[in-house]
Amino acid sequence: MNNAKLLSLSLLLSSSLVVPAAAEEGMFTPQQLPDIAEQLEEAGLELDPDTLTDLTGFPMGAVVSLGGCSASFVSPEGLVVTNHHCARGSVQYNSTAENNYLANGFLAQTQDAELPAAPGSRVYVTTELTDVTERMRAGTEDMEPLARYEAIDQRRKDITAECEADPGYRCLVASFYGGAEYTLIKRLEVRDVRLVYAPADSIGKYGGDVDNWMWPRHTGDFSFYRAYVAPDGSAADFDEANVPYSPEHHLKVSAAGVEDGDFVMVAGYPGSTSRYALLAEVENTFDWQYPTFQGLLTSWIATIENTAPEGSDARVKYESRLASLNNFEKNLRGQIEGARRVGLVDRRRAREAALAEWIGADPARAGYGDAIAALTDLSVESATAARTNFWFGNATRPQLLSAAQRLYRLSKERELPNAERESGYQERDMTFFRQGLQALDRRFDPEVDKAEWVLFLSGYIAQPEAERVEAFDEALGITAETTAADLPGLVERFYAGTQLDDADTRLALMEADAAQFEASDDPFIELAVALYDYERSLETEGEMRAGESLALRPAYMEAITQWQKEEGSLPYPDANSTLRITFGNVMGGSPFDGMAYLPFTTLEGITQKDTGEAPFDSPQAQLDLIDAQDYGSYELESIGSVPVNFLSDLDVTGGNSGSATLNARGELVGLLFDGTFESVNSDWDFDPRTTRSIHVDTRYMLWVMEKVDGAEGLIEEMDIVR
Amino acid sequence: MNNAKLLSLSLLLSSSLVVPAAAEEGMFTPQQLPDIAEQLEEAGLELDPDTLTDLTGFPMGAVVSLGGCSASFVSPEGLVVTNHHCARGSVQYNSTAENNYLANGFLAQTQDAELPAAPGSRVYVTTELTDVTERMRAGTEDMEPLARYEAIDQRRKDITAECEADPGYRCLVASFYGGAEYTLIKRLEVRDVRLVYAPADSIGKYGGDVDNWMWPRHTGDFSFYRAYVAPDGSAADFDEANVPYSPEHHLKVSAAGVEDGDFVMVAGYPGSTSRYALLAEVENTFDWQYPTFQGLLTSWIATIENTAPEGSDARVKYESRLASLNNFEKNLRGQIEGARRVGLVDRRRAREAALAEWIGADPARAGYGDAIAALTDLSVESATAARTNFWFGNATRPQLLSAAQRLYRLSKERELPNAERESGYQERDMTFFRQGLQALDRRFDPEVDKAEWVLFLSGYIAQPEAERVEAFDEALGITAETTAADLPGLVERFYAGTQLDDADTRLALMEADAAQFEASDDPFIELAVALYDYERSLETEGEMRAGESLALRPAYMEAITQWQKEEGSLPYPDANSTLRITFGNVMGGSPFDGMAYLPFTTLEGITQKDTGEAPFDSPQAQLDLIDAQDYGSYELESIGSVPVNFLSDLDVTGGNSGSATLNARGELVGLLFDGTFESVNSDWDFDPRTTRSIHVDTRYMLWVMEKVDGAEGLIEEMDIVR
Repeated sequence: MNNAKLLSLSLLLSSSLVVPAAAEEGMFTPQQLPDIAEQLEEAGLELDPDTLTDLTGFPMGAVVSLGGCSASFVSPEGLVVTNHHCARGSVQYNSTAENNYLANGFLAQTQDAELPAAPGSRVYVTTELTDVTERMRAGTEDMEPLARYEAIDQRRKDITAECEADPGYRCLVASFYGGAEYTLIKRLEVRDVRLVYAPADSIGKYGGDVDNWMWPRHTGDFSFYRAYVAPDGSAADFDEANVPYSPEHHLKVSAAGVEDGDFVMVAGYPGSTSRYALLAEVENTFDWQYPTFQGLLTSWIATIENTAPEGSDARVKYESRLASLNNFEKNLRGQIEGARRVGLVDRRRAREAALAEWIGADPARAGYGDAIAALTDLSVESATAARTNFWFGNATRPQLLSAAQRLYRLSKERELPNAERESGYQERDMTFFRQGLQALDRRFDPEVDKAEWVLFLSGYIAQPEAERVEAFDEALGITAETTAADLPGLVERFYAGTQLDDADTRLALMEADAAQFEASDDPFIELAVALYDYERSLETEGEMRAGESLALRPAYMEAITQWQKEEGSLPYPDANSTLRITFGNVMGGSPFDGMAYLPFTTLEGITQKDTGEAPFDSPQAQLDLIDAQDYGSYELESIGSVPVNFLSDLDVTGGNSGSATLNARGELVGLLFDGTFESVNSDWDFDPRTTRSIHVDTRYMLWVMEKVDGAEGLIEEMDIVR
Repeated sequence: MNNAKLLSLSLLLSSSLVVPAAAEEGMFTPQQLPDIAEQLEEAGLELDPDTLTDLTGFPMGAVVSLGGCSASFVSPEGLVVTNHHCARGSVQYNSTAENNYLANGFLAQTQDAELPAAPGSRVYVTTELTDVTERMRAGTEDMEPLARYEAIDQRRKDITAECEADPGYRCLVASFYGGAEYTLIKRLEVRDVRLVYAPADSIGKYGGDVDNWMWPRHTGDFSFYRAYVAPDGSAADFDEANVPYSPEHHLKVSAAGVEDGDFVMVAGYPGSTSRYALLAEVENTFDWQYPTFQGLLTSWIATIENTAPEGSDARVKYESRLASLNNFEKNLRGQIEGARRVGLVDRRRAREAALAEWIGADPARAGYGDAIAALTDLSVESATAARTNFWFGNATRPQLLSAAQRLYRLSKERELPNAERESGYQERDMTFFRQGLQALDRRFDPEVDKAEWVLFLSGYIAQPEAERVEAFDEALGITAETTAADLPGLVERFYAGTQLDDADTRLALMEADAAQFEASDDPFIELAVALYDYERSLETEGEMRAGESLALRPAYMEAITQWQKEEGSLPYPDANSTLRITFGNVMGGSPFDGMAYLPFTTLEGITQKDTGEAPFDSPQAQLDLIDAQDYGSYELESIGSVPVNFLSDLDVTGGNSGSATLNARGELVGLLFDGTFESVNSDWDFDPRTTRSIHVDTRYMLWVMEKVDGAEGLIEEMDIVR
């Protein structure tokens, strides 16, 4: 029913009155592209689909990951374009009271003027994919769950280490279809990343939290980095002698852009989806986990806002946390609403029933049914464990406790050979480990941390006996009589007595051995030591369940993907931060009855929204240009203005931010940066009626660069096509 | 520029792809219809426009006023259809804990079962319009301002009294174009009004305050009354012997309904607009009055909500006030946003400059310029007076003080012959006066009243000396040292010592003479007596300004309407609660960049919105019918469902609620019940891009009646056409 409506709506909304091919749901791996070559050509792709499978060819060779965000090369000299919100940390890192680049934007007129990106900034260039399924899985079928988990974990570490023997590369083993397949991904790790150009927040973050997840949108969410390497072309730390990296390929940038209905595709690194989650998992998530956490987030946000009032120093430190909590809360709210709207639980129940019918139709498939039943039991077990430990988990969130726990864990892991240590505690992890300990100061205020802890503890003490942890209660002095009013008193001594609020102390503890921690009288370290055994036991229980799942889920995935193929659709693995391609069309939509999203927003919409106050405080120069209808060569005739943002029906999720949006010829026409509020539930269930992704249009990007920010140098550096 | 966009948008949104004639802004008087006959025919009217000017002919003879709402006859037996929100007071009046008609709806299966509407309910049938301009204005030109005001006021009362000499009629003299023209309106006053059918709140008030002023909308905002008269056909109070009123005409009800782009017109009683307000008035309103009042409303709402918590008895009493304050606050917010969006002040400034140019082009028009300059001075004077008295005015809001003031005033007015008394204090007003005093108990709680008073007083004492009133300060014991903390103590004695909280006491005081009030030791009466002279002086100052305006504004209106005619548009008077016709088309719209309102909502949209909790708690029976796609004969093929509400570009405002929406043949296709949030500013400046009115579709009304509520008897009573 909805499909018919979608078609008639797109007819209604498409000024070209050409019915676009229905979008194919799916985040496809590059290897899958030959399977969808026909659909791609039907949908409008003018390139040979086979070229897309070559990760080192054009255009995929131009697509990179920043770790958490996607990006792409747009010049032969290593110029990288991504979202403003992906590069904003580097803008902030370089900002001072005198040079407030967040407020004023930053533009390096020459390469010399480019600034080092924030510590830890990386550009990952994927160079090789290797199927390592056989090596990862061989012989694990008959193992006990924990042994299976440990074997697979160890093989993952070994394969990674072998791959990283090639210096300058960072490798990872990605799991697909719930552990049915494994791919080793080898990536050049560019460590000298520099900030080239970012518009002011009043363009790049226009609309801020208010417009986050929203359409209509008017955000100039683009920024430029440059990748630098040693003169010999190898990855290197920042050095003045370094030179711009020469990518094999870079994207052409289209100044002609797209029109309503046009073919578009996105190549990027979507983080995580749950399209194959079982009914039991969906029920647990939407009946308990999401609503509970959304409620907690609301109190958490209020606690920070009250303890760190606007304008205070503490607020500055917590702004980024507040932004993520707000983002998360809004996302969960959207997911909960979306699940209700599409009837997610009923749809999943129906899918599971249909799958069961398919399994029942052939006795040879009985093993699938058993695996699904066992997996359902396992997911109920996991859910029970998650509920039982939910409040305890929150109660261990204080930042200094968490630092103490990580440090003590490091001392314990160090007792093992490097190859056997837990991920996150190997030598390869130490740079990020150190940076994390250093960065704590910039995000920590003891009063706010205390208030957060009291909030979490007040939830913890309200739970039944079974959900309380003896070692924790003892260390904090929590008894059956403890009330919320006692909590501020109980936590006080931790902050009064700790030295972990000093960065040097924390860094020095990276070298301490376990005995030193066990002898410490720092209250947070004492607590970390006291909780260690209990937390390891929780971890082991989790690993046992993971080990069981590693045997069961591949069978379930085999069943469901086989069934889906027979039903005529092309299964694809859930998102796992690996490179994916999704294709579709520029398209408005009807997010709910009686309303329509038009496919483009216009410059004039900025003026309409502008209040002069953040986040709707466009630079006056921009407003004047709009007022003068000074569109330059970037006008889209059908809308009578420069398009600012546009919608498509592409299948994306978090992690895709910054992804290149390509037209039928593989030219850059936009950057994906968000999904609509009604789309967030697509992580669980792709609803073609409501799922729309939001892109910043290259015409707006070029217009701002040319007219507002005077970045003609960069425009010249890129290959602009029409 | 906007017109071009609107056209291309309507093209985009119109599935018929026929460009509808651009709507004519305007709330036209019936007498103006010959002037717009051609446009009406062009727009699609199939009736002879001349028939519309006959108020006792078809279809206008079927259109009635309920006083504050509009309505129409839909059967030869006096059946009246209006909005649910217009009849809800009568549903509430008849509801008890056992028979909760608000929750369950009410349907009289026979005429015997019909229930008396709430006290004061009326059906006004306009029978005659007479131009009384000459009599009202003759000789007033040369009078002093106050004398002019008083002469015109006295003439108004005299003409009204003469007209009402015909028993059963209620008359009024309406002023048009700022006092340039006057019309005597004679209306049969049906006083026996009975409730016939109202759907449950979960249909009739679906979406509640959340959806108020909003699109998309899914409200079944319809209800039915029946007008009863004495057996001889004359208006009479409720009596079992009364019989249904036989209207001269009644509307046919269309089950075929409208399609996107269709001609529609609305006949009803819009309350008030300010389209001709001068720049100085607009500036004062949007720079000061609206923002100030919106701020006060926000605190006021919070005060009531805090003092009368949800679930308390007090909350029940204040629910209706809270609803109006919220409605008002949302409206003001919409007006403020709308004014900013359209650049109201700049547009008005430009209009005034263009008018000044037109005046300057001909020396004979110099008088207009003088009048406008004087009127601008006068409006600045009025604004100053309003600002000066704003907080004092609020500080006299307590309900018992207000009752005391009205009662004391009545005793003073009674010293004059009836014909000379102030409007509101004549014998013809006493029924409503008494009902007001009686109804107070149902809307009064001393703790809430106190809290409100303290809120207003805290604003009052913060004002400079010049805005304070000596008599008031003395009576309350307010000094320069008084702080907000003192206020609760200061007001306490009023509530402890008054007897005005007793309805019988209040009613008895309607017979008291001034001396009795002056001797009273009731604190509220003492305060009323103390304030009397000051308030009369304020009133006289206001009347002097009104008297001046009565000389100046007609000249300004003559200038602007003459100029508008030369510019090619047809001027129409500001709304004044008299019968008006507006016409246009069924039409979605783009309220802001990147978004579109589709013209219809569907049954499925109800299911989408439904949460099971008020105000989104559709009856299960209705949800089941929707689920079964049981559309009966009411489906609109182009949307594949029964249309629930629809949008049009008609020019309406508050008071139009309940208005018949007619198709090209004068058949009822809907009831107007709201405007979109982006439309509320049209009271000041009609913006064709954003102004959209919201109608409940007759197909939804009939579907609910047939499928959900079993009101087939009423469907049979009406003339249903296809």
